[in-house]
Amino acid sequence: MASEFELIRRFFDRPARRGARTLLGVGDDAALLRVEPGMALAVSTDMLLAGRHFPEGTAPGALGHKALAVNLSDLAAMGATPRWATLAIALPVADEGWLSAFSAGLFALAQRFDVDLVGGDTTRGPLAISVTVLGEVPAEHALTRGGARPGDDIWVSGVLGQAAAGLAERQGQLRLAPQVAAPLRARLEMPEPRIVLGERLRGIASAAIDVSDGFAADLGHVLERSGVGALVHYAQLPGVRTGDAALDMRCVLAGGDDYELIFTAGQEARAAITALAGALDISLSRVGAIQAAPMRLVLLDAQGGQIAPPAGYDHFADLD
Amino acid sequence: MASEFELIRRFFDRPARRGARTLLGVGDDAALLRVEPGMALAVSTDMLLAGRHFPEGTAPGALGHKALAVNLSDLAAMGATPRWATLAIALPVADEGWLSAFSAGLFALAQRFDVDLVGGDTTRGPLAISVTVLGEVPAEHALTRGGARPGDDIWVSGVLGQAAAGLAERQGQLRLAPQVAAPLRARLEMPEPRIVLGERLRGIASAAIDVSDGFAADLGHVLERSGVGALVHYAQLPGVRTGDAALDMRCVLAGGDDYELIFTAGQEARAAITALAGALDISLSRVGAIQAAPMRLVLLDAQGGQIAPPAGYDHFADLD
Repeated sequence: MASEFELIRRFFDRPARRGARTLLGVGDDAALLRVEPGMALAVSTDMLLAGRHFPEGTAPGALGHKALAVNLSDLAAMGATPRWATLAIALPVADEGWLSAFSAGLFALAQRFDVDLVGGDTTRGPLAISVTVLGEVPAEHALTRGGARPGDDIWVSGVLGQAAAGLAERQGQLRLAPQVAAPLRARLEMPEPRIVLGERLRGIASAAIDVSDGFAADLGHVLERSGVGALVHYAQLPGVRTGDAALDMRCVLAGGDDYELIFTAGQEARAAITALAGALDISLSRVGAIQAAPMRLVLLDAQGGQIAPPAGYDHFADLD
Repeated sequence: MASEFELIRRFFDRPARRGARTLLGVGDDAALLRVEPGMALAVSTDMLLAGRHFPEGTAPGALGHKALAVNLSDLAAMGATPRWATLAIALPVADEGWLSAFSAGLFALAQRFDVDLVGGDTTRGPLAISVTVLGEVPAEHALTRGGARPGDDIWVSGVLGQAAAGLAERQGQLRLAPQVAAPLRARLEMPEPRIVLGERLRGIASAAIDVSDGFAADLGHVLERSGVGALVHYAQLPGVRTGDAALDMRCVLAGGDDYELIFTAGQEARAAITALAGALDISLSRVGAIQAAPMRLVLLDAQGGQIAPPAGYDHFADLD
């Protein structure tokens, strides 16, 4: 009989890397960690449920990757360097093959960013995955949502809407050639947290957020916290191109799960940001400007006409 | 329509206590925390599911209390002072009455121990609650499971088996007078984390663990990590008395959810521990001694006969 303790040990209790940073890992009542003097601790937590945050039948390796990736993305949006993670997971059955693939996906990403898994809880129940990540950032350089100022440029990394288009294709709402669909599905299932970009934006960006609920909704959070408005040119938004312009617009503006960064920066930072894009080999697009009028997001099409901003994805919106 | 953001805000986004310790609370991509220089960060995480970790129909206020209490208990067992918590919760419906009572139960306990809720995620799904707690402890005084040495005394706080007896009564396996049942049910639903005891045992105890899976199983974790054995006198164990001696023994030895502390300490600490019991108005019982033989737990009855140690509660044991 594989007990809970054995399961945890077999798949999640990797050799405890005792050292300057992780004093004690998995296996005691709590982990003991050493935060570097002068650094603030950045903490974020998420819960992912089958059928809601990922399609039923998603490969367990992709799930392990995504459960950690969406949390690392929150640290990236804070400009923080990830250090540790904890995992609480409920599983309907203690399936060793599933656990093996899930943990392999999770640890592959953790190792790429030098993240120690330092705590875990495994229980039986409907599939639910909760990850908490901890990182470090100099407090004065943390990229909050509240720092955008009128006149700042608005920037976006990568391409928006790919994950949403991948989901539409997976759900049969969209037919695409396999070679077009594959990278979109990869973006949906294996998102890439923009960790290095976030770290390099310390001291450059005035505010940042990651795109999890859609460009319009997530930029809206920045506007709300910063007490400002924004003018955005749709044609400048780096968006997915499926051949269906209306679908593309919905995916770009309201598609979640891209995990790209939206950030603001003063105009004097343009050269530094362009240089950063080259250094990191990542596309960084200037898509608009922060304005003084609080909370107002004005979206313009190529002809200068106004586009009504769509609502963002709301994990509870269908309940009320 | 109450959106996810509004729900979170209404019930969980208490006035952000920006200050020396919490630089940024709920509402950004991550919280920003300041760990006191020289302190190690202690981190623990748990997931609670309806029907598994608490009976269906448990009052939401008790659930809010318990979800935080079981995690705080892990910090107590580490000798850590709790500072912060994050909450990820899946709910079948966005029931405002439920959320109001749940959050009231959680915050009442948080405030008693000066814990800031600094992150949250709310989503729709089968009821699942995941809490992560963060605390501080001087690394050299942390109470791990690995410090027990042959000759150390074994101590237990409070009374064991009450929560298990309360569960048996609630499930109709046991009939008790209401005035006997009420405190047992209270221990099941509103466990008290032994935070102050854990803090005061720094520098006194050689090892500690909290009783979540049952005395025998939890002491077993200490023996395993410390590479030692133990001799325990059942008659010295402070146990529940329901009138059914066989049930009492099962509750005392294998009943989970007590959240008392088991700790070990050198014999020279007896006077200090007795004084501590008086100062904290808490019962601390000396129940046995650590022995050299690795992993061997010997349980003796009042006549000196050996009792077979029962298996502890295993959240996955019924799966295989």
